[in-house]
Amino acid sequence: MNELQARTSGVRLALWPKKSISADTNLPEQTSSSLEFTIGHNVDSKEEVDRIMKQAENAGAKIIKHAQNTFYGGYAGYFQDLDEHLWEIVWNPAFETNEQGL
Amino acid sequence: MNELQARTSGVRLALWPKKSISADTNLPEQTSSSLEFTIGHNVDSKEEVDRIMKQAENAGAKIIKHAQNTFYGGYAGYFQDLDEHLWEIVWNPAFETNEQGL
Repeated sequence: MNELQARTSGVRLALWPKKSISADTNLPEQTSSSLEFTIGHNVDSKEEVDRIMKQAENAGAKIIKHAQNTFYGGYAGYFQDLDEHLWEIVWNPAFETNEQGL
Repeated sequence: MNELQARTSGVRLALWPKKSISADTNLPEQTSSSLEFTIGHNVDSKEEVDRIMKQAENAGAKIIKHAQNTFYGGYAGYFQDLDEHLWEIVWNPAFETNEQGL
């Protein structure tokens, strides 16, 4: 089991076209909304936040909020991927990303 | 570590008001869309699908698609929670929910 598998064991992120979700649920297609969810990716340092934000930007992501100190003593930024989904890259000093010991 | 923690180790589902996401990202509030994401909950049997769909309905969820056989040989249904988020309850015979051995 590699590190990524350990961190997400039992959980999978899968991408489906909205058209497919509409067809599968029978709900009508509707205008997109970027506020329905954010994917938060917690990392181990401010430097890692900066590195991943840069990596996303280089891959075509739109920077929504440049990484900055947060009110709770952390450091975080937001970008939108090419489908306009929101991602937050976060360092939270109170949160050990490997706290489950995996 | 209990079963739920094991299955989601390192991953957390958190609920935030859209107003808070709007404030944190500086993106304007916008009309909701239920097709932005679905949460798929894989279980171990058809009976468990039926049980959870019923439990959700009793708790006020709106049944979007009654549980039924799927094209890939599984069994699944959809409901919307009170915030209109889509959940899919799924039994997929090709997918062991404890495949990570946790």
